[in-house]
Amino acid sequence: MMYNYDKYLPKWGVYMLNIGIIGATGYAGAELARLLAGHPHVRVKFLGSRSYAGQKFGDIYENFRPGGNGSDGLGGAVCSGIDLEAASGQCDCVFLSLPHGIASAEVTEGVLSRTKVIDLGADFRLSDTAVYEKWYNTEHKGGKLLSKAVYGLCETNRENIRDSRLVANPGCYATCAILALWPLLEAKIVSPEDLIIDAKSGVSGAGRAAELGSLFCEADETVKAYKILSHRHTPEIGEQLGIAAGGKVSLIFTPHLIPMNRGILATCYAKLNGKRSYGEILEAYRARYGGENFVRLTKPGVFPETRWVKGSNFCDIGFAVDEENGWVVAVSALDNLVKGAAGQAVQNMNLMFGLDERTGLEAIPAFPC
Amino acid sequence: MMYNYDKYLPKWGVYMLNIGIIGATGYAGAELARLLAGHPHVRVKFLGSRSYAGQKFGDIYENFRPGGNGSDGLGGAVCSGIDLEAASGQCDCVFLSLPHGIASAEVTEGVLSRTKVIDLGADFRLSDTAVYEKWYNTEHKGGKLLSKAVYGLCETNRENIRDSRLVANPGCYATCAILALWPLLEAKIVSPEDLIIDAKSGVSGAGRAAELGSLFCEADETVKAYKILSHRHTPEIGEQLGIAAGGKVSLIFTPHLIPMNRGILATCYAKLNGKRSYGEILEAYRARYGGENFVRLTKPGVFPETRWVKGSNFCDIGFAVDEENGWVVAVSALDNLVKGAAGQAVQNMNLMFGLDERTGLEAIPAFPC
Amino acid sequence: MMYNYDKYLPKWGVYMLNIGIIGATGYAGAELARLLAGHPHVRVKFLGSRSYAGQKFGDIYENFRPGGNGSDGLGGAVCSGIDLEAASGQCDCVFLSLPHGIASAEVTEGVLSRTKVIDLGADFRLSDTAVYEKWYNTEHKGGKLLSKAVYGLCETNRENIRDSRLVANPGCYATCAILALWPLLEAKIVSPEDLIIDAKSGVSGAGRAAELGSLFCEADETVKAYKILSHRHTPEIGEQLGIAAGGKVSLIFTPHLIPMNRGILATCYAKLNGKRSYGEILEAYRARYGGENFVRLTKPGVFPETRWVKGSNFCDIGFAVDEENGWVVAVSALDNLVKGAAGQAVQNMNLMFGLDERTGLEAIPAFPC
Amino acid sequence: MMYNYDKYLPKWGVYMLNIGIIGATGYAGAELARLLAGHPHVRVKFLGSRSYAGQKFGDIYENFRPGGNGSDGLGGAVCSGIDLEAASGQCDCVFLSLPHGIASAEVTEGVLSRTKVIDLGADFRLSDTAVYEKWYNTEHKGGKLLSKAVYGLCETNRENIRDSRLVANPGCYATCAILALWPLLEAKIVSPEDLIIDAKSGVSGAGRAAELGSLFCEADETVKAYKILSHRHTPEIGEQLGIAAGGKVSLIFTPHLIPMNRGILATCYAKLNGKRSYGEILEAYRARYGGENFVRLTKPGVFPETRWVKGSNFCDIGFAVDEENGWVVAVSALDNLVKGAAGQAVQNMNLMFGLDERTGLEAIPAFPC
Repeated sequence: MMYNYDKYLPKWGVYMLNIGIIGATGYAGAELARLLAGHPHVRVKFLGSRSYAGQKFGDIYENFRPGGNGSDGLGGAVCSGIDLEAASGQCDCVFLSLPHGIASAEVTEGVLSRTKVIDLGADFRLSDTAVYEKWYNTEHKGGKLLSKAVYGLCETNRENIRDSRLVANPGCYATCAILALWPLLEAKIVSPEDLIIDAKSGVSGAGRAAELGSLFCEADETVKAYKILSHRHTPEIGEQLGIAAGGKVSLIFTPHLIPMNRGILATCYAKLNGKRSYGEILEAYRARYGGENFVRLTKPGVFPETRWVKGSNFCDIGFAVDEENGWVVAVSALDNLVKGAAGQAVQNMNLMFGLDERTGLEAIPAFPC
Repeated sequence: MMYNYDKYLPKWGVYMLNIGIIGATGYAGAELARLLAGHPHVRVKFLGSRSYAGQKFGDIYENFRPGGNGSDGLGGAVCSGIDLEAASGQCDCVFLSLPHGIASAEVTEGVLSRTKVIDLGADFRLSDTAVYEKWYNTEHKGGKLLSKAVYGLCETNRENIRDSRLVANPGCYATCAILALWPLLEAKIVSPEDLIIDAKSGVSGAGRAAELGSLFCEADETVKAYKILSHRHTPEIGEQLGIAAGGKVSLIFTPHLIPMNRGILATCYAKLNGKRSYGEILEAYRARYGGENFVRLTKPGVFPETRWVKGSNFCDIGFAVDEENGWVVAVSALDNLVKGAAGQAVQNMNLMFGLDERTGLEAIPAFPC
Repeated sequence: MMYNYDKYLPKWGVYMLNIGIIGATGYAGAELARLLAGHPHVRVKFLGSRSYAGQKFGDIYENFRPGGNGSDGLGGAVCSGIDLEAASGQCDCVFLSLPHGIASAEVTEGVLSRTKVIDLGADFRLSDTAVYEKWYNTEHKGGKLLSKAVYGLCETNRENIRDSRLVANPGCYATCAILALWPLLEAKIVSPEDLIIDAKSGVSGAGRAAELGSLFCEADETVKAYKILSHRHTPEIGEQLGIAAGGKVSLIFTPHLIPMNRGILATCYAKLNGKRSYGEILEAYRARYGGENFVRLTKPGVFPETRWVKGSNFCDIGFAVDEENGWVVAVSALDNLVKGAAGQAVQNMNLMFGLDERTGLEAIPAFPC
Repeated sequence: MMYNYDKYLPKWGVYMLNIGIIGATGYAGAELARLLAGHPHVRVKFLGSRSYAGQKFGDIYENFRPGGNGSDGLGGAVCSGIDLEAASGQCDCVFLSLPHGIASAEVTEGVLSRTKVIDLGADFRLSDTAVYEKWYNTEHKGGKLLSKAVYGLCETNRENIRDSRLVANPGCYATCAILALWPLLEAKIVSPEDLIIDAKSGVSGAGRAAELGSLFCEADETVKAYKILSHRHTPEIGEQLGIAAGGKVSLIFTPHLIPMNRGILATCYAKLNGKRSYGEILEAYRARYGGENFVRLTKPGVFPETRWVKGSNFCDIGFAVDEENGWVVAVSALDNLVKGAAGQAVQNMNLMFGLDERTGLEAIPAFPC
């Protein structure tokens, strides 16, 4: 049987994109490097790092250690500093994976005239700088560009992403919660009040900073809620779900830390607007996600588990209906470093450059892993 | 300074109780053995096991392996079968740690005339056999004794426990959820409707049966919700919280499996009855738990984590108030094998025999552990 | 820049192989399915399973759950039984991932006339059936085919594998130990006596059987040695290292169980033949592995860790020299389900069908994972 | 039956010791606090901490959070600084749990005239300051006191400990390795050459410093060897085993990091002096450990696992004999924070003050934990 290469062909020709990653040595940045190394239409040209400038990427992340066959690949690349000016001059697309407050100061009209930017940080996710400044407790320096920024959740905002030069990649918790609740609000199946999102995340969500709370002995064999009523993804979730609902929503978001490396599970509770059957709710999910590559709906009675999405760009969603009390319990699972960060960023890049959205993201989750 | 032994003295004299554990080789049974081995007023006389009858306890649980000093202790004891008749003839108190459906058939008036019984299973927890039979999907054979059974949550039912000969030790999830929500309902601070309990448990809650879902590779590095809207602790929580509220409550209970050995964290959401300050709610908790040995209230802004209670009989409770949306988020943490099972059972035994409630339960949680 | 597809082209034309996996629902079988799903020149036609015949693969391994875009992929395939006859009629290559004793009875001349076979089990690894029968405590029923079987360690036996129709895929521990010690013995740098291999494995090495010792609560937060002096990979390691040494070797092999899903680390101790410098030993490793795709030598002072190979086909090797005592300590790390099982099997398949050895195996290890 | 308090009575009267812990907020220091809180004859008077001076102990280690019954216990104690002068004035015994190099400068004749000192650090473990300075790469400032220091391994040095005022508590790895090999060397059953100690430790051995390598995401799901041929416990093991052997020994010590909180397993390889049976070797172990409280010998064919000693002061030992190759494989397991640190320190204190060696250390290991 002849093999068909067509699926690898971009819609407007065979080419290679030059890519920069700034903040390449955090967990999300390194995951971007891993995914892009397997992407057939890109070449990573620029790796920027604050802490490891001047060092070989493969000495920091030894998973990128070169094989014995002479080719160094990304492992042999030397990190530059955090230099968006330099990166924008060499790259068709630059990913930023930086602490909040930096991207909004660094991204300029000039930068955007030279390169497209996908920001994995929080700076361009909220439309209102006042809300940003309240929750992030810092000045927002990029207000003028906010109107150009597009929220990069492909499943709800695909067309805007395609035409954008500045994409705000959603937060990991936000992606998981929004995907679970969007169809319910959009279809007016649930009340926009009293949404409760109880989310559980692996430790990689805390990043690679050497902090006491992230130590193995502090995070292993325990579970905790943290930043109760104060986590910064709250207004982001609220703004997006407000778009779905066509009006203001009110929600409680409680993140938890789980002793595992990767994964987010969001258990979401929403009050039904009157009697609703399982089938009716399923229809709402199918209407929104039926054609999506990266959202998988579970069968009735089956619920998502983070192990089934690990390492992949999938977000799995399942739900149950409490007809007696009038609530729906929707559960969603994703890999916080892939669909919750780097994978979604690549998905956005694919859209922005006319590539098949799946390119470089087709790996099946590994299990047990 | 002279040492004071008084704290070790029981109120009505110095003596030793003879104790039986039936179902001694499950995790809860073995934890009972561990706690009772350190209890100054008991002697374990009878270890009953279905799977390991005839074997030495220390060959099954090698933590009980005897030291080099000649004394075998419990490790050298040989397990009998599941024989409540025999145990009741030798013991002042018998603990049952068996799958549901067995205790209700085995406990009889005759047994109770000879020994006190503390049942760690579910058979005597619900006052209504019809509810039991619906949720547990099996006939309840001990209906006549139900009126004699007392729900063994010391913090809410102490006086009844003292005088009982048959105590139904609460479920692990139930203990955690009830302790978190009881004072709020009792003080009429929250609505009895729309209670949401999102609970997270370590894998030991699933017991020691060799089942696929409990394998390391299936439970490690993942998190899942399970038995959504169908977990059997739901009616137990509902009945007890109904007592607190003085009327029917409605609740959603969602258990989750976490990759850790021990611990339960319950994140509970309840709707406030009007404006309520943090201080007002704290007052309600203090009114109920101010004098309790095993409930610890966290400081404002600090929340329970299972690591801080591991191996101990403590249940830690903290909360936050969402004044804008009118909800309280209460978080409780306990060790499912101690306060959620064996420790609480010992606490009940202490009460039933006039001992200081803390005896044998004073160990400080070990950390990191 | 134009994109070059050449690296995807097999040496003798563009085609698709039909593949069978028998024993597809064990961990190694499922890992094969995952790797082959991403292999550009194969199509999995046959999934055989003893326990799950008649069920959809994606219902057993939900990581294979189909996406929303209509394509079911492997997740939608229905498992057949353990039927090598049927598989051999439809497939160019059949992988067997079965408990020992089955493959040697099922593989026949007839089967091999229709398909190539790669056996991930132990039945064809040892050249001497008497040794097999002693260590595996069962009759070997395929003695006549043993002379046709080739030991499938590509790095030491590549040319024989190319021409074989029956490959015995090496054991996971054996792969790790042999790769670490082979160059030292081949170059006569170390004594063939007193080889000590202290190996540490994740729990997936024990397979997916629901056994007490593999439960989360039995394997988490602990480490143990097991099958001391009696593990079945011992004679396999001995036979292969004997080939390297050109004579009999004597070795002690001690496997350990580590609370992690995947990975093997082998810490190997060998006595130096006289004074040997680090550089001299490095030369021996380079001579054997300099051109290898999947062996990565670490820098001086850096040692392998299983996290850096997880999910990949790499085996990392590093070493230190104790000049004072005259020993070399060589450390190797691999993923037991990839280079230790399914990945190595695909590597063998690539060789047997004239494909680039790296095809389908180029993924960079994911971290943290 | 009457209860017998005699076992709680110290040999020379009922009294309470005043205790100081300097370095109380590291893992070993906090474990000391936990064990001493349960010790019937001590009162912790002084908690010294460099990082947390002025803070309540229960705010740092929330496991010590006071219960609701009004008694604060250790949780309410406020930490002082690292002030051995002050502590020595108030305490009968001071435990030091500090980075190396501090104790040797701080402990003076004056201090020792006021209090007994048990140093959990490395400064007084080696008899030769030159060896210390080479391995620890720092000046040893307490050379004059070295002759007064006694190596605190009770099982091999009990009588000297009893009479000492300055005890060097052994290293965690050292304790595990020495206990496994001592009887073999003492009985001349094995050669003092070519000893190989392959040890595996949980992450708490690395302490509570916020360092990259100790992060959950860096240490979970992986295993590595580290400090190969250069770990500082090497000369300590060598010196002690030299005492057992009555002459110089040569050894290789390879520590490994395991993804678990607590525990050390040492797999030790030693060359037999001629033919030796299992029974003969067992006799050597029994001769040394037959009367020991905290060493447990496993049955033939059973080997230690760290889970069976977790939280306890036990060291379990088992072995196998490779008669063909002439090696013995001895395996030992302990809890690095208890028998490897704080528990052994309490055992030493008990000896130094004439108490029953077991006092405060009788807890059975908890499992699963």
